[in-house]
Amino acid sequence: MLKDAPIGVFDSGVGGLTVVREIIRQLPSENIVYFGDTARVPYGSKSRDTVIQFSRQIVRFLRTYDVKAIVVACNTASAYALDTLKAQLDIPIIGVVRPGALVAARATRNKKVGVIATEGTIKSGIYASVIHEHDPAIKVLGKACPLFVPLVEEGLLEDAVTDEIARRYLKPLQESDIDTLVLGCTHYPLIRKTIGRLMGEDVTLVNPAYETAISLKRLLQEENIYRSEGEARYRFFVSDAEERFSQFANSILPVDLVWTRMVPIDEY
Amino acid sequence: MLKDAPIGVFDSGVGGLTVVREIIRQLPSENIVYFGDTARVPYGSKSRDTVIQFSRQIVRFLRTYDVKAIVVACNTASAYALDTLKAQLDIPIIGVVRPGALVAARATRNKKVGVIATEGTIKSGIYASVIHEHDPAIKVLGKACPLFVPLVEEGLLEDAVTDEIARRYLKPLQESDIDTLVLGCTHYPLIRKTIGRLMGEDVTLVNPAYETAISLKRLLQEENIYRSEGEARYRFFVSDAEERFSQFANSILPVDLVWTRMVPIDEY
Repeated sequence: MLKDAPIGVFDSGVGGLTVVREIIRQLPSENIVYFGDTARVPYGSKSRDTVIQFSRQIVRFLRTYDVKAIVVACNTASAYALDTLKAQLDIPIIGVVRPGALVAARATRNKKVGVIATEGTIKSGIYASVIHEHDPAIKVLGKACPLFVPLVEEGLLEDAVTDEIARRYLKPLQESDIDTLVLGCTHYPLIRKTIGRLMGEDVTLVNPAYETAISLKRLLQEENIYRSEGEARYRFFVSDAEERFSQFANSILPVDLVWTRMVPIDEY
Repeated sequence: MLKDAPIGVFDSGVGGLTVVREIIRQLPSENIVYFGDTARVPYGSKSRDTVIQFSRQIVRFLRTYDVKAIVVACNTASAYALDTLKAQLDIPIIGVVRPGALVAARATRNKKVGVIATEGTIKSGIYASVIHEHDPAIKVLGKACPLFVPLVEEGLLEDAVTDEIARRYLKPLQESDIDTLVLGCTHYPLIRKTIGRLMGEDVTLVNPAYETAISLKRLLQEENIYRSEGEARYRFFVSDAEERFSQFANSILPVDLVWTRMVPIDEY
């Protein structure tokens, strides 16, 4: 049954697990095959061509598990590679950018939206272009926050240093009168509290992971391949250091990891 | 003439340029071919097998330029891959660990040496084992400092945040009565001032980049392939984003970069 086929989810490393977390919560019967490119993380500072090449290899790997759909759970890969991947695939594929951007476009009252993300995602201008499809009058202010990923990976989720770095990165956004802020990197929901405190209660934070799970469910239902009952099976693959990955995964997922395997991704 | 053949130098990214800087200063006539693996940086958090595989590909690439010797200008790659590479090569190859470790072993008076490095280098225990070859009575205290590399790459060389992170990482070393500290990652000499201020004047800082250039000169002289005169030629290759690399290189090298090219390293 095509319904029972797994959903392929991939990211540059552990960040995409925040998307898996939302999929598990909102689509609890869907089987998942996850790939985290921990040997080549981070993507955020790498070039478009490199990110496209890496993403293609990962899609080839995921297809060996006969996935019925693919979620690009990485903002940088969604920004750089989604269109190329989509043109070459005969199964549905969605990224995290479009769902997040559309919700932000609908949420803003004063037509001023901020986006925080990696250098690659900000440089691509993708959030602005999707938001402008919805409403060209919205002003979009982007800000790259390169240290957030290493700070999260170091576990400094609630910490004076993370506060200080966040204060610097967010200053131009605080001064800009935005009323909506997109957490445009899958790591950022993990420091949502810090970001929320600094931006204040009047600024709506948009988590694309959450919106992506909603879009995915709608897409699967439309295609009539949504698995609505039965126990789900989760398989995790990484290109390096599965132990480190499993630790991180177990700390943020609502289920225990059954297993994680290593894959020589550059052979795909 | 074999003397005119270039020296191959490689690193996971830009850190190895601190080694190139020392080679240019101390061996000003040597031609250099540098490779920085910017598509797959960082190595410090990756596994032994992955680092060995990446290093092998890079050596194959460097040999296409008929290098007469190779310098592994990355502590993590020196720790994990040097022995494997050496066993397979018919040209001299040196890493940054041994020269730094031996100088530290000779410098300590109270037989207490600290080593700060990436997770991979610390986990490998390589500094302790080389120091113990020299003197098994020396106590070696290692401390991984995972945020130093991203802080340096973000340009926060003199900054309150770098100070605060350094204070936390160095605390156990400050309390330990070491009199010598090895900067066991090629990025760290760039925040030498901060580290020196926190450790105090009584602690000798050892920069393996400096010691490696001395060892390299000695090795080339012994092999009778040292190039002592003539203008040198420098060529730089990276696996991603040459612009970003060139900027960084121009900020720390004593010469202007003539050119940098991109190489699809996983095809080697």
